[in-house]
This record gives sequence, structure tokens and C-alpha cells, in this order.
Amino acid sequence: MTVRTTHDLLIDELRDIYHAEKQLVRALPKMAKAAKADKLRQAFEQHLDETKGQVERLDQVFQQLDTRSSGKRCEAMEGLIEEAKGMMEEIKTPEVLDCALIVGAQKVEHYEIAAYGSACALAEALGQNDIKQLLEETLNEEKAADQKLNQLAISEINKSALAAAA
Amino acid sequence: MTVRTTHDLLIDELRDIYHAEKQLVRALPKMAKAAKADKLRQAFEQHLDETKGQVERLDQVFQQLDTRSSGKRCEAMEGLIEEAKGMMEEIKTPEVLDCALIVGAQKVEHYEIAAYGSACALAEALGQNDIKQLLEETLNEEKAADQKLNQLAISEINKSALAAAA
Repeated sequence: MTVRTTHDLLIDELRDIYHAEKQLVRALPKMAKAAKADKLRQAFEQHLDETKGQVERLDQVFQQLDTRSSGKRCEAMEGLIEEAKGMMEEIKTPEVLDCALIVGAQKVEHYEIAAYGSACALAEALGQNDIKQLLEETLNEEKAADQKLNQLAISEINKSALAAAA
Repeated sequence: MTVRTTHDLLIDELRDIYHAEKQLVRALPKMAKAAKADKLRQAFEQHLDETKGQVERLDQVFQQLDTRSSGKRCEAMEGLIEEAKGMMEEIKTPEVLDCALIVGAQKVEHYEIAAYGSACALAEALGQNDIKQLLEETLNEEKAADQKLNQLAISEINKSALAAAA
């Protein structure tokens, strides 16, 4: 697609996010399976459900913009997921892998925070307030997911890793 | 490098960030050159200086950890920079390209916010307070850079893009 206008840029950005979310729907079950700590596995499982809802919300946004739901290869998310896969293969201490999974997941969350934040600003500039509101709902979920992972790392996971292998 | 402990994970993470920052030192001048709005070009130039300082700060951190400064291929940052390059080639409306450059730069900032935030938490868990403090200085610069870009988008760049091509 050729991007000439702010409207084109918003659609282009939404397609990038759509592809990113779809990749994440495939990656999160693997991350949940690799997690040792129950709370971390549950956090990934819960975020998988949330992510599926976010894909549906994007379907709604595309519908409101009168354009078909479609993805555009998101190289950044591909890189993020490749890094997470690498860690799952390489790190043999389960408690340390839990820390690394949180690092990877927080990078994913921050990618999405930046992407949805930008899409919100573009929707606002275009006066597309309904769309902005939908995107903001997801943005707030991503911020909450990031905070939750942060708390989990500090309160529990990083300490367990240190106890397991200093 | 084999990651077995929290200490290994911190070094692995710092090497990932080191490679990411080095890539950014090469990419920012191209982004500054592609920017149409003076304020955006200046923001990229200023962040280039800041990024060079952040690389030096990482050199200090490696020195304190008694390990040599070295990078580890950061696929996520490669993906982010590839996306920015793609936009610079594809978007022909300069004011809309300015918006897209901000989107790309905010994604980069958020990658770094997540990476430095995680590294700070690992340094804290390891009781490495001097290192945590150095990493926190950079973390705060990245957050400020993200906020500045956000303000620039909302107050000016997104409106100029809309005026140029609705």
C-alpha cells in the first residue's frame, strides 16, 4: 500500500499492529509452556486471552475505517519473538529463564504501547474519536500488562532466579 | 555466551542493548536527514548526541562488571530500523513522513525503555547499585526522549501532515 496521507499512515500502522498481535497469539502459548513459576504462566495465559480480544477490537477498527482486516509483515515483532525463542532454547536454568521471559514480554508490551499510542494520536488528529477510544482501551490493557510483569519480576521472579543460581 | 545465572542474563541483556545503541548511532543521522520539520531534525540530532553518551555509559558498566564491551546481535532493533528505512523509501509526502519517523522513533525509545528497565531490575536484584544508577540515568533520558517526541507529534507534526495531505 502507498502511504500518502495521515489516513493511509494510520491504516498502515494498524496493519503492522494486526500482524504483530497475530504473531503474539502464536508465541504466548509457547512462553506460558516455558514458564516455571505458576504466576508467570498464568500471566501469559491471561494476556493471551486479552490479546485475542485486542485482535477482535482491531477487526472492529478496520470495519469502522471501511477497510478489510489485514496484516503487514511486522519485522520488529518478528525480531522480538525470535529473541524470546532464542532464550527458550539457550537458557537451561528454569528460574533464570523466567526472568528472561519477563524481559522479552516487557519488550513486546512496550512495542505495543508505542504502536497503539501512536495510532491513538493519529486517530485523534484525524478526528476519529470512536477509533481512538477503541485503541485506547487496548493501550491501557498493554500498559497494565507491562506493570503486572514488572511487579512480578521485582517481587518474586528475579529473587527466585538469584536463589536458584547466583 | 551461555546464560546460567542472573548475572549472565544481565550481561547478555547489556550486550543486546549495546548492539541496539550502536545501530541507532548509525540510523539517527539518516532519520535527521529525512525529517522535514526543523524541530524534528533537531530532536533526532540531540538524541544522537545523547545516544553516543549512552554507549559510553554502557562501556563504564561493562568495565565495572569486569567484562569487555561487546554487542550481541539485537534482532528487535534490526527490525525496528528496517521498518523506519522502509518508511523513508516509501512515503513521498514529507509532512506525513515526519509523522511516520516519530512513530518509528517512539518504538525505538520504547524498546530501550523496556530493555534498560529490565536491566535496572536485574542489577537491583544482584545488589549492583552503582550499575543500577548508571542504567537508570539512561532510562530517564529515554523516557524524556519519548515524551518529547510525543509532544512534538501532538502539538505540531500530526497537524502539519493533516494540512499537507488530509
